[in-house]
Amino acid sequence: MDAVSDREQRVLDIIETARSKRAKFRDERITMAHGAGGKATQALIEGLLVPAFASPALDGLADAGIVRVGELGLALTTDSFVVRPLRFPGGSIGDLAVNGTVNDLSVAGARPLVLSLSLILEEGLPAETLRAEVAAIAAAARAAGVEVITGDTKVVERGHADELYICTTGIGVLDERASLSPAAPRPGDRILLSGRVGDHGTAIMLARGEFELDAEVASDTRSLWPAVDALLDAAGPSLRCLRDATRGGVASVLNELARAADVAMLVREADVPVDPAVAGAAEILGIDPLHIANEGTLVAVVAPEAADAALAALRAAGGRGDFAQAAEIGTCHGAPGGMVLLETAFGGKRVMDMLVGDPLPRIC
Amino acid sequence: MDAVSDREQRVLDIIETARSKRAKFRDERITMAHGAGGKATQALIEGLLVPAFASPALDGLADAGIVRVGELGLALTTDSFVVRPLRFPGGSIGDLAVNGTVNDLSVAGARPLVLSLSLILEEGLPAETLRAEVAAIAAAARAAGVEVITGDTKVVERGHADELYICTTGIGVLDERASLSPAAPRPGDRILLSGRVGDHGTAIMLARGEFELDAEVASDTRSLWPAVDALLDAAGPSLRCLRDATRGGVASVLNELARAADVAMLVREADVPVDPAVAGAAEILGIDPLHIANEGTLVAVVAPEAADAALAALRAAGGRGDFAQAAEIGTCHGAPGGMVLLETAFGGKRVMDMLVGDPLPRIC
Repeated sequence: MDAVSDREQRVLDIIETARSKRAKFRDERITMAHGAGGKATQALIEGLLVPAFASPALDGLADAGIVRVGELGLALTTDSFVVRPLRFPGGSIGDLAVNGTVNDLSVAGARPLVLSLSLILEEGLPAETLRAEVAAIAAAARAAGVEVITGDTKVVERGHADELYICTTGIGVLDERASLSPAAPRPGDRILLSGRVGDHGTAIMLARGEFELDAEVASDTRSLWPAVDALLDAAGPSLRCLRDATRGGVASVLNELARAADVAMLVREADVPVDPAVAGAAEILGIDPLHIANEGTLVAVVAPEAADAALAALRAAGGRGDFAQAAEIGTCHGAPGGMVLLETAFGGKRVMDMLVGDPLPRIC
Repeated sequence: MDAVSDREQRVLDIIETARSKRAKFRDERITMAHGAGGKATQALIEGLLVPAFASPALDGLADAGIVRVGELGLALTTDSFVVRPLRFPGGSIGDLAVNGTVNDLSVAGARPLVLSLSLILEEGLPAETLRAEVAAIAAAARAAGVEVITGDTKVVERGHADELYICTTGIGVLDERASLSPAAPRPGDRILLSGRVGDHGTAIMLARGEFELDAEVASDTRSLWPAVDALLDAAGPSLRCLRDATRGGVASVLNELARAADVAMLVREADVPVDPAVAGAAEILGIDPLHIANEGTLVAVVAPEAADAALAALRAAGGRGDFAQAAEIGTCHGAPGGMVLLETAFGGKRVMDMLVGDPLPRIC
């Protein structure tokens, strides 16, 4: 990459050295940071979970595992949802449980097919709360075109859960148009974003009443399959990879991809669509909107020759709300490999790393 | 059925009338009974969950949902595990999480293929506890011949979980030898049991130290696929249906099958294998060992002509421990449809219904 000063390069070298080591898990106890999607989560996953299973499917650390059965390629993905509060502007835990799983399949290039639903209920949960979430799950599944075909219910005593936890697992069928890999991005590739960043995390934060802000922000929870379908149609094999920017936000996703592909990613801050209310909330919290979780926003890396067509297709895609605010936000470069740099509105550059934890726990 | 007295018949008629109504969910709050696998669970599932999803796959209320993709038949099943304590004689939550899901696939006639693993961790959980359970999961998966291909981790604050909850979901491939249905049992069919009843629930109870009993009882947690494989080989299409006798025990499973097939099931108490320590614990608690949960014991209904071969194959099947104690415990009759009767050691008969709740909550 051009225009990295000597001083910047020295900082990059130090960070690079630290990051090239495989994450280790050395903590004696689990902390909230281990569930926040940042570096602590990565250390838990790479340092403890993945080595235990010695499964090639897990090595990619993707959002879905792939299994081949005869001629067929299937994607399997699972997520537990522990969001607090259960309901928030734009959605609820039931919506997230469906869309989160549908989206993990979608960004794996798999058309979502069926879901399983496992509930952990806290003793004393009002039946009306359960009824409302079951209705939300059914509605979200209909909207996403998937069927819930099996389930399980457990109840734990008061004080051993927080009303309701949901685990959804989904099967998708790998789309023949897709040849996606987190290692695929190359220098010159363009980085697309399907919409605004930070709406979901901000909506949750406001719903918790944790600070005063006279703003209305709704979660972006929705199925991303219409966006993925449009991108696959427009770009086919030129679509390098897709990621759903949930916990840890766009910044975490880009860092994971930059590392996996050993490319540098340069993001132009001015081109990232952010709602003014979200920008304001982020400012107050002292975090970057690119670190705030989304539940219906994806990052796509596309070969340069297909980028314009892909962006146009994305903007025209249907689905809940739409993807009209999709934008090209940056490009891939050869060096410094594994790093994400933000070109600020003032023309400077700074490293945009993953956070260790997340200032907003339990957002999904 | 012969030998039901007039008095017995009147009691049966009353129970029959009450049971023929579809279960309704009328409670205002969730109670522990809703998670216990008995009638309250049934009311929650049939009265609230199944109607919301309007999915034909859910109507069968089976342990796994079936989905066809092209030529392929797949089974999907999910379970959350909230057992307390995490470790107990014979196993741990990690073993249950693998074997429970593997067994739900197996009794659906599907060869277990891959699993997903979703963890909900309580803040402050010792890393060693997590490490031990992850190792148990990996070992149980190896023993069962399945691979964990994807996962998720969430962390909730202290006091919002009980150390560790696990949700596993599995995909299996429907075995061509299997044509199983809970509605298939017919008068004359034989009822087989793959081993002793009540070991798991009793082991959990003893591990909790809830009452004094100088006995060593270990959970029967293990993969049932070797037993299912042997039964399919020996009986093929004469194998009517299989059920894993977990929450609610053998009694609940038989009641579900008797209702689904509209047959009467007559169980000979003397032929049910029970460990003396389990029988003693059940006696103290005032419950029937047939109501106690198992985690590696199945019920098979087999056409009469194949029953002897099926039992011999079952007894010869391998796997953890073995199935040498498998037994034929009863037969199906035409009437009273939907009922399970127990022929006691003293020659009398009594109705063996499902319990409303379970005297042992959180056993899986």
